[in-house]
Amino acid sequence: MAIKYDAGTGALKNWLVQETAFDERCLGKCEAIFAQGNGYLGVRNALEEPYTGEKRNTFVTGTFNKASADEVTELPNVADMTGITVKINGYELNLLHGELDDYSRTMNLRTGETTRKIRWKTPEGITLTASFRRFVSLADDHVLASALDFSLDQEAEVLLETGMDGSVTNSGAQHFDPPVCRVYDGVDMQFLSKTTQSGVWIAQHAACRLNKDVPALPVMGRRTLKQQYRFEAAPAEQIHFEKICTIHSSRDLSYEQSAPTDMAEALKTDGRKALAAAYEKGYDPLLAESVKAWDTYWTQSDIRLEGDADFDQLAVRFALYHLNIMVKHDDNRVGIGAKAMTGEGYKGHSFWDTEMFILPYFTFTKPDTARTLLEYRFKNLYGARAKAKENGYEGAMYPWESAWVDDGEVTPLYMGADIITGEPTKILTGIIEHHVTADIAYAVEQYEQMTGDRDYMEQYGYEIILDTARFWASRVQYSREKDRYEILDVIGPDEYKEHVDNNAYTNYMAEYNMRLALRVMEKLEQENMPLYQKLDQKLDLAQIREKVLACVDRLYLPQPGADGIIPQSDQYLQLKKLDLEKYKSSEAVMTISKDFNMEQLNQYMVSKQADTVMLLLLLGGQFDEETRRKNFVFYESTTLHDSSLSKSTHAIVASDLGMEEMAYRFYEQSLTIDLGTYMHTSDEGVHSASLGGIWESTVMGFGGARLQEGVLRIAPKLPAKWTGMTFPLCYQGCRLSVTAGRDTVQVKNQGAKDLTLYLYDEKITIPAGAQVERGI
Amino acid sequence: MAIKYDAGTGALKNWLVQETAFDERCLGKCEAIFAQGNGYLGVRNALEEPYTGEKRNTFVTGTFNKASADEVTELPNVADMTGITVKINGYELNLLHGELDDYSRTMNLRTGETTRKIRWKTPEGITLTASFRRFVSLADDHVLASALDFSLDQEAEVLLETGMDGSVTNSGAQHFDPPVCRVYDGVDMQFLSKTTQSGVWIAQHAACRLNKDVPALPVMGRRTLKQQYRFEAAPAEQIHFEKICTIHSSRDLSYEQSAPTDMAEALKTDGRKALAAAYEKGYDPLLAESVKAWDTYWTQSDIRLEGDADFDQLAVRFALYHLNIMVKHDDNRVGIGAKAMTGEGYKGHSFWDTEMFILPYFTFTKPDTARTLLEYRFKNLYGARAKAKENGYEGAMYPWESAWVDDGEVTPLYMGADIITGEPTKILTGIIEHHVTADIAYAVEQYEQMTGDRDYMEQYGYEIILDTARFWASRVQYSREKDRYEILDVIGPDEYKEHVDNNAYTNYMAEYNMRLALRVMEKLEQENMPLYQKLDQKLDLAQIREKVLACVDRLYLPQPGADGIIPQSDQYLQLKKLDLEKYKSSEAVMTISKDFNMEQLNQYMVSKQADTVMLLLLLGGQFDEETRRKNFVFYESTTLHDSSLSKSTHAIVASDLGMEEMAYRFYEQSLTIDLGTYMHTSDEGVHSASLGGIWESTVMGFGGARLQEGVLRIAPKLPAKWTGMTFPLCYQGCRLSVTAGRDTVQVKNQGAKDLTLYLYDEKITIPAGAQVERGI
Repeated sequence: MAIKYDAGTGALKNWLVQETAFDERCLGKCEAIFAQGNGYLGVRNALEEPYTGEKRNTFVTGTFNKASADEVTELPNVADMTGITVKINGYELNLLHGELDDYSRTMNLRTGETTRKIRWKTPEGITLTASFRRFVSLADDHVLASALDFSLDQEAEVLLETGMDGSVTNSGAQHFDPPVCRVYDGVDMQFLSKTTQSGVWIAQHAACRLNKDVPALPVMGRRTLKQQYRFEAAPAEQIHFEKICTIHSSRDLSYEQSAPTDMAEALKTDGRKALAAAYEKGYDPLLAESVKAWDTYWTQSDIRLEGDADFDQLAVRFALYHLNIMVKHDDNRVGIGAKAMTGEGYKGHSFWDTEMFILPYFTFTKPDTARTLLEYRFKNLYGARAKAKENGYEGAMYPWESAWVDDGEVTPLYMGADIITGEPTKILTGIIEHHVTADIAYAVEQYEQMTGDRDYMEQYGYEIILDTARFWASRVQYSREKDRYEILDVIGPDEYKEHVDNNAYTNYMAEYNMRLALRVMEKLEQENMPLYQKLDQKLDLAQIREKVLACVDRLYLPQPGADGIIPQSDQYLQLKKLDLEKYKSSEAVMTISKDFNMEQLNQYMVSKQADTVMLLLLLGGQFDEETRRKNFVFYESTTLHDSSLSKSTHAIVASDLGMEEMAYRFYEQSLTIDLGTYMHTSDEGVHSASLGGIWESTVMGFGGARLQEGVLRIAPKLPAKWTGMTFPLCYQGCRLSVTAGRDTVQVKNQGAKDLTLYLYDEKITIPAGAQVERGI
Repeated sequence: MAIKYDAGTGALKNWLVQETAFDERCLGKCEAIFAQGNGYLGVRNALEEPYTGEKRNTFVTGTFNKASADEVTELPNVADMTGITVKINGYELNLLHGELDDYSRTMNLRTGETTRKIRWKTPEGITLTASFRRFVSLADDHVLASALDFSLDQEAEVLLETGMDGSVTNSGAQHFDPPVCRVYDGVDMQFLSKTTQSGVWIAQHAACRLNKDVPALPVMGRRTLKQQYRFEAAPAEQIHFEKICTIHSSRDLSYEQSAPTDMAEALKTDGRKALAAAYEKGYDPLLAESVKAWDTYWTQSDIRLEGDADFDQLAVRFALYHLNIMVKHDDNRVGIGAKAMTGEGYKGHSFWDTEMFILPYFTFTKPDTARTLLEYRFKNLYGARAKAKENGYEGAMYPWESAWVDDGEVTPLYMGADIITGEPTKILTGIIEHHVTADIAYAVEQYEQMTGDRDYMEQYGYEIILDTARFWASRVQYSREKDRYEILDVIGPDEYKEHVDNNAYTNYMAEYNMRLALRVMEKLEQENMPLYQKLDQKLDLAQIREKVLACVDRLYLPQPGADGIIPQSDQYLQLKKLDLEKYKSSEAVMTISKDFNMEQLNQYMVSKQADTVMLLLLLGGQFDEETRRKNFVFYESTTLHDSSLSKSTHAIVASDLGMEEMAYRFYEQSLTIDLGTYMHTSDEGVHSASLGGIWESTVMGFGGARLQEGVLRIAPKLPAKWTGMTFPLCYQGCRLSVTAGRDTVQVKNQGAKDLTLYLYDEKITIPAGAQVERGI
């Protein structure tokens, strides 16, 4: 494994992720971590030349399609535009062949550009010295571009071929009807395709520029359109080649308001126009525009760490880079994929991951984006209500997996083989993992408290809270024997435990959700009767109140036992013990699933990820510190952290409990989930929730920025290696710059109004434009 | 290019095709020429480990499907079972990486088994010595098997993974719904899939055997099912691994008579049963059964050449090998693909190639297979009549491309880019290339004359002849001006000329077809009135006769001009001349299409392939030798031989004209169309018509075995390098063994009845069991 992370000096220090040697085993990982995008497009960094095992993915937001009737909708892989065939005297560039004297691939997080430099000898002994550059524009959603500069040490025949390759699939599933292709004026390539089921059109255009007078030969294959340049290159002749590409889709926001009558024609026209404009500019000017947009982002968003923190600094920037490109900031019809748009994993679907692990970044720093994402959840109510009804419940039961805004539940029904029976394993999460509904309500309240965005709450937020509460009131089951309400047969966050009863996390969050609805109704009655009436008309609030009140006080909330342990479920503490050392020490995750099937796993006291520990994080105020500590220690011992959602949560809770060393250890481990040395973790895409978790553990954990009883509290607790950190927040519409030392915190209110918040445990008001400093 | 063709000594002399060095540029070629099959299955010889650019195809006869509404039906690529992942300490076997000390891949044409031997050092320096073997059983349609024997020079962790990979597509077109997979008892893998449009089920089963006690871990991905073995191999430990596979389809002949009510279940049951039986036998016994079937074939079918003929001998056997595996000898619902079942080229469709270039092999040596193929054309009448109707004609107008028996015309409408306009090029062959209809009638008469199979003629053959004649009578157009019938706006065999009028080949063949129908009617009236009446009832023979008689005598048959040249079409001799040297001397074919689009090509006096020369071959008796010579020389000079159908035709006609050297030069070139050194000719599959052409030029050309006025005539004319040849024929149901010397021919009648035929120009009768010899 040869990825270097100490990259750069001077202005570039801790801005570069560098692969310094070519290692075929890291193809997938590097494709994902070097991926580029802008929220509209997501493009894996597959190398220009092909390799077996590569995943050459380009995704366009919102273009979901079902490849076949029995499958769930997913983001389809559109025709690849990143591949470039380079042949020298008939030998195709292939770094595994010939001789590779020099190799580096660099992602400059500051600019979003990747640069690959190689010196490679063909099997015939001709040396190619080349630099490949590539970016997806942050300034123009539709633009991506590549540049190739090279020379040879001997005269040779060069063949360059590139265009669109629509033979790509999603691991064998073809989402597109055959494309309609053509070339205009020998230059502009046009590739128009339509998804098979959802009827989404994709228009891809590209044009190339070569610093030699060589005509391009159009090469049209089945589902491919390319242009071929063939020429003699003199020794040391500098060849410059660039390719400018644009992608548009019929789901583009611009078509949402006024759909053209002939969508295909509109896309062709708009695409050609966009290509012409971009092509006229060329690679470097287009890059400059994109870099400017990145400048703006980093100026607002960078987090700076001081002390012995080089890798941490880079990893935090890496997270901030991906957090920025994983979301279409202005499109409330799409969520964030569990692998962002960097791989086929989880099909571009949104999970609770968004609200619990990613949204906090936006809620705390980019409220406009957070609002877009929560508007998406409002639009999701359509599917949530349908799902509740289908399952015999009331109100809004959010899909476990969500795709296009009205797709409803899209969790697949089966996954890999059961290692015992040999049959496909049933996926139950879409059926019985219910906590996501409360998680969304929780996120809505966090957003309200952090931003004070009444408009959102009035238009969308309250309705989400109220209708999710109604769901829970219909979901709980009365136990006559115990005279209490229970929630039976669920999966909690710990997905190694199926069909459990009274999962503590789920029950507490359900109770939270219902009480939140009661508070909302009370507040609206007092403060905004017109809105109350409007919502009442729509939802029948009296009924919700009645149903919630009928169960909420008697909803069973598992309490700590004599040993202080809160049972994760009715079953958990009675399960068989298992020596977890083998699995805990493995670099790979989910190795336990090679030894046990789900049915067997269900019988052991082993957890995939933070479950009760997650509860300690979200509703920690309900437990004393001793209880939290005992439960943290106990549940950590039974947890394999086989989900990327686990470690950052543990880091924050450990930090809260003053377990500084352990907190930092989990933090370090969470930083390496994508950036680490294990070669295959990111094959299916980066872990978007883990990247959000990096921000959470950095800013909410060590930076100590949290909501406490509805008010922002900043109480930094830096790890030993750090001497300081600076991070931005956005509170009540005002931008804050927070600078923390080991014992101090400085907050500058860059906004236009006074803000009241806690610094450590002191409640203070910071006037608009003012800066205050406090120590422990 | 490192394919060796002098392979083998002793018993194996001229039986081995050997690739003696690994050359990535020859991947496609070798996959095709080393392809294996049995007429039911066709499996490309992709290497076990993956390479970019590979085409890992497995086809099952008759399983045609339309990948999308706008595409034509084609043979779908079923899940691959040939791939085996081999990892040594995490490094995947990849001959382009690490160090390759030794490499050979051998196809033993005698046994149908391929063997690949490698000595390869991993990037870590561990040496793997391995032998990979593979065959498709000729004894059992459904069975294919692989064996891998290897050792390492150091202890290392080995990972073997193999199963079914259903992520394969036809160049991006996915033909199958998601598969249903499972493993039984930890051993038997089952992979069941259904084509998306035609609803054809494919059941694939496989089981592996390893000479170590290592449990298999099932690995089920999207469209993949594999088993994984992970173990430590000691230095020099001999590892033996084998994989036995079976494939069944719902289009299997066995289901044709009595279709099971639950096809999927039947396929699962039958597949598991077949796998169990095959697995119990194991690789070597299964191979032995297959070799026995090959023994039978070669005993009956081998052609032996004497003299300086090593490569010719191998190439002829290579052709005989492929001719045997390209056809399902007993299934009259399927034809022969233009690339057999060795590649995606031409989608598994049958063209005139079958009747004109391949069928003669079967008609002259394997009449049962010939009959099967001509029964297929009888079944095709359904589509032929539909096509005639759609086009406003009468009778039977055969599809230019045929697939499943009732698919009708399946020629695609577009191909690659027009290099001038940038738009897709329209394919006109399905619309205006009409000669195939007469070609089939011609093949039927050849079959009748060679076999004397009255049963076929009465049940099928006459009807084909009569209804095709009716087509031609409706197709011809009367020219008032010239008071003659013409055939305007066609494509002749020369596909570089579109929209031509009075293509000589087409007109002569149409006339032949109509006169043949008149002869048939006359004969039936005289000899078999009941059949005449039956056909009359079905086809209205009086009407056919009337319509044919109305035009046949005045159908324009282009005559030689003052210079002796028969105009290929009304336009041809007026076209612009072009210097063809550049294209004629190119190793690659169709290079002219990089300089001209079809519209431009149409304006030049340049031909793709034998057209008028083909006429000289089929109906040569209608022209004197001088005319034939003049036309041969003239048209050869304007022909680029850009179709693989061209050279063998030229070889035979040159031989007929006594142009011995030229004949042999064309012959040699035709032998290398697949087996030669040019690296990409066979990428899309072997050229089945060219392979048939090799047999034609060998036996009908040099061997001089031809039908002359309905009677077999054998008049060998060996090339200078050969001193003798022996070949089998089957005439009137009797097997003949022919041994030719430079001036003599010996014929042994191995049949049970006396045969009358020509040896040179002497008509003689050879009594059953007797042998005669004649000299020039």
